[in-house]
Amino acid sequence: MPVGTLGTVKALSPDEVVSTRAQILLVNAYHLYLRPGHELVARMGGIHRFMDWPGPILSDSGGFQVFSLARLGKVDDSGVRFRSHIDGSEHFYTPELAMEVQRALGVDIAMPLDHVLPGESAAGPARDAAERTLRWYERCRVAAEGLTTFAIVQGGVHAELRQWHARQLAALDAPGYSIGGLSVGESKEDMWAMTAVVTAELPVDRPRYLMGVGSPEDLVDAVGRGVDMFDCVLPTRLGRNGSLFTDDGRANVRNARFREDPGPIDAACDCIMCTRFSLAYVHHLFRNDELLGYRLASIHNIRYLLRLTERMRAAIRAGTFAEFSEEFLGRYRPADEATRSEQKAKWLEQSGFEAPAPG
Amino acid sequence: MPVGTLGTVKALSPDEVVSTRAQILLVNAYHLYLRPGHELVARMGGIHRFMDWPGPILSDSGGFQVFSLARLGKVDDSGVRFRSHIDGSEHFYTPELAMEVQRALGVDIAMPLDHVLPGESAAGPARDAAERTLRWYERCRVAAEGLTTFAIVQGGVHAELRQWHARQLAALDAPGYSIGGLSVGESKEDMWAMTAVVTAELPVDRPRYLMGVGSPEDLVDAVGRGVDMFDCVLPTRLGRNGSLFTDDGRANVRNARFREDPGPIDAACDCIMCTRFSLAYVHHLFRNDELLGYRLASIHNIRYLLRLTERMRAAIRAGTFAEFSEEFLGRYRPADEATRSEQKAKWLEQSGFEAPAPG
Repeated sequence: MPVGTLGTVKALSPDEVVSTRAQILLVNAYHLYLRPGHELVARMGGIHRFMDWPGPILSDSGGFQVFSLARLGKVDDSGVRFRSHIDGSEHFYTPELAMEVQRALGVDIAMPLDHVLPGESAAGPARDAAERTLRWYERCRVAAEGLTTFAIVQGGVHAELRQWHARQLAALDAPGYSIGGLSVGESKEDMWAMTAVVTAELPVDRPRYLMGVGSPEDLVDAVGRGVDMFDCVLPTRLGRNGSLFTDDGRANVRNARFREDPGPIDAACDCIMCTRFSLAYVHHLFRNDELLGYRLASIHNIRYLLRLTERMRAAIRAGTFAEFSEEFLGRYRPADEATRSEQKAKWLEQSGFEAPAPG
Repeated sequence: MPVGTLGTVKALSPDEVVSTRAQILLVNAYHLYLRPGHELVARMGGIHRFMDWPGPILSDSGGFQVFSLARLGKVDDSGVRFRSHIDGSEHFYTPELAMEVQRALGVDIAMPLDHVLPGESAAGPARDAAERTLRWYERCRVAAEGLTTFAIVQGGVHAELRQWHARQLAALDAPGYSIGGLSVGESKEDMWAMTAVVTAELPVDRPRYLMGVGSPEDLVDAVGRGVDMFDCVLPTRLGRNGSLFTDDGRANVRNARFREDPGPIDAACDCIMCTRFSLAYVHHLFRNDELLGYRLASIHNIRYLLRLTERMRAAIRAGTFAEFSEEFLGRYRPADEATRSEQKAKWLEQSGFEAPAPG
């Protein structure tokens, strides 16, 4: 799912997102609750009409935002008190309010309010948060009557806790399952171990959604562990920085080697950038900070990830996913640029707190 | 003509410019000569292919840029020596080089190199510059063999000089005539007086192009004085600041009064912004600095000006232009915001030296 935190996939029009063949996109309830306000969106005809998106929309409840980046963040079972990152105003967010917001937006798939902890939290706090998330989910189900609402599995990096939480939620027959609290600072080893523990417990006939992931290599690794859905700011965020996904890893179109390249970055790609413009032109746009460059690169990266899911789907159907995965991961070179500061920037934007354009 | 100085109309895709029904757009030879280089553009298949624009393209020669904003700017009859605004490198620009650059770009309409002076220059320097522009035009015609090249009328704010220059050029049977050296700091009275003096001398069966103009009210005033063609950064520049053209004047969509407005800024407008999005949504985009807002407002403003030309054309055909002009100018309130600093900013961007996005 391309990420449209505030009701717009950064830099892109709805038509351009359609051109990537995205089937669904994500918006964020916390952000839209604060601005422009969920009731205003409802009065404007709902989020689909507001942003003129013709397909389904999934909303994150804002649990991640409320706990990770809003100020204050005082939590008890009744809900969480926080200060707006925009104007410092105080708000009390509850499971019921999270559902009310998402109902007003009119989304197709809602998320319950969950208690999100930092990646490497100790077992005690992780258990408290997971138990609270379970109690909150029960309240969300009541409040969400008639609204398709996934359950979110928490439990930090603690395998037994993850397993217990997944089993509890699996028994509640949710229409879909999210895996939360990963890709938030823990190690890759922990992330994949937890993913495997959780997916083993979830019903096979319900979609599994790994929240906030990811990069091409992460998508392949996650699908291999039974994940079906993803959302990530990475394709649009990297796109605005000129970084393009290819099967060999990322390539930055600002690099001088593209200055006079008449071809596309990927001859197999059917995106607008690859079929209509030379790398020389996109390089020229980036060298001059022209907004069209951000757009074309964002389109390519989203389309790249969606083509990757198409290729994985075909491999699964053909019974050749293991070979596909091995070949893909053997060839793909993860970016050296994926430094700590880049991780932090990605994490900030995943929360929707980042400025829309670089430079 | 929407302005695509560097081979892209700021913030917009070719398809979006097509959606405004623009029939032709402008690029700048000076800028493309410096970056990425006209020879590179030629090797990439020419400017149409490079930027994937399906219609005609007119290029400014860069005379305005070379004289107004590049450093050094030492001129004699052989040409003008200047330093690049990008890297300080020294260049010698001649009438012949200006035509070579535009031929390499492969534009449909080229401009000769002209000697441009500040708006209120005295009669002596203005005469020297006009005479040089005439001599250069003769050289450009030779160098431009086979390339459609307009003549450019100079002469500052001196009526007799303008008249003399226009007559000299009219006798040379150019395929079209540009009026240069206006809208560069002189008074509106001088601008319109000079325009009327010049158009009276030009052949009626050749297009007259008032360079660097303009606002809605300027277009109506100029058409009333016999002008046919315009280029200006104003629609896209103002669009990126949230300022929208309407028949009543400009309205800034950031204004709180649009916060919950479900309608378009102009019910008669058929642009993408007015037909698909509420003002409330565009307001929301601007409040959050989302790039889609810049795009939608730019599209609306370009379409507004093109609709204005359609309305003027219809009025001319119906023999009712005088009434249309009176009614339009009676209703349209020119912006109070058109301050000196805004003029300067517009002038800077008209030269292509401004950053692409606000904030």
